[in-house]
Amino acid sequence: MAAEKMIWQGGTLLAPVPAVLVGCGNGKEFLYNLITVAWAGTVCSEPPMVGIGIRPERYSYGLILATGEFTVNLPSTNMVESVDFCGVRSGRDVDKFKACGLTAVPGSQISAPIVAEAPLSLECKLEKSVELGSHTLFLGRIVAVQAACALIRENGSFDVDHADFAAYAHGHYYSLGEKIGHFGFSIRRKAGAKIRN
Amino acid sequence: MAAEKMIWQGGTLLAPVPAVLVGCGNGKEFLYNLITVAWAGTVCSEPPMVGIGIRPERYSYGLILATGEFTVNLPSTNMVESVDFCGVRSGRDVDKFKACGLTAVPGSQISAPIVAEAPLSLECKLEKSVELGSHTLFLGRIVAVQAACALIRENGSFDVDHADFAAYAHGHYYSLGEKIGHFGFSIRRKAGAKIRN
Repeated sequence: MAAEKMIWQGGTLLAPVPAVLVGCGNGKEFLYNLITVAWAGTVCSEPPMVGIGIRPERYSYGLILATGEFTVNLPSTNMVESVDFCGVRSGRDVDKFKACGLTAVPGSQISAPIVAEAPLSLECKLEKSVELGSHTLFLGRIVAVQAACALIRENGSFDVDHADFAAYAHGHYYSLGEKIGHFGFSIRRKAGAKIRN
Repeated sequence: MAAEKMIWQGGTLLAPVPAVLVGCGNGKEFLYNLITVAWAGTVCSEPPMVGIGIRPERYSYGLILATGEFTVNLPSTNMVESVDFCGVRSGRDVDKFKACGLTAVPGSQISAPIVAEAPLSLECKLEKSVELGSHTLFLGRIVAVQAACALIRENGSFDVDHADFAAYAHGHYYSLGEKIGHFGFSIRRKAGAKIRN
């Protein structure tokens, strides 16, 4: 049955979205910086790519353009205060790694820093920039992934449940709750599901 | 303290991401269809825009290109079986609205259908396509939003907690869990935070 609807003007109401700590700079002529980005998403599987939307007036914007690199660090819920801080303060005014007590470690494939405390970090090379309006979309190829050894299961897979990732929805940070089902569960009990994503 | 890390090849491990029902077609020469997309994200605030990554071989790919329109429907957790089904089956073979018992209603600003049962739907006009590899990124301007009246609070805001949105992380669907904090909470208790996102 169709529910009654309220119609609004367009707005950025997609939810939940990730709230990630983007690492940039190279530790040399461009000092390390962090910026929190909620306008982030996976955009391609082969090659693996992410997109992050950043305002040109942000300090990190120039760092990413100048170096052609960035990292996407997935925070666990116990890092949310740092995530929030890195979204509201500017790297022009404060060393965010230091202010948050986070550790910058150069990437394995790039010079941009990962956040050592994050359970999972994606090392990205900038492939394309798309100017959209308030934000420019940086499209990055994920050239390496760093995962906390403590979260690798015996079978070699990443333990997403113990990573305790934070989500963001309509102005609030959340933990993940109940696990509802796995990809393909709607038909796998009847027949083999082909993964199409 | 820096944790020990395992280094992997690049992979699409950003999480959590939304798992949305994308509506397309116009109900005339292009019949309505649904496709589940987890490669989705907000990309710009002004104008409000979303990006969705879709493989060119998917049936919905041609529908979106032909009509220049799509909707992004945010499912609640009780719709996850339909979300999964619409991700593994093709609209070439099955009427997914019918198979899932979902109701297609034309958008208020576009002909593409919203899913009436979804708590929140974004009506989008295709502005740009970016070919990336396995997926093409469709960038859409959000021209209208439809929200379930039952989820509008007395002050006119959308009740995200009762919407009970589903999230997707590393092959599993999740509910949202504990609300941890609001945007700006890390500094708002000390001083006014400027919203920078």
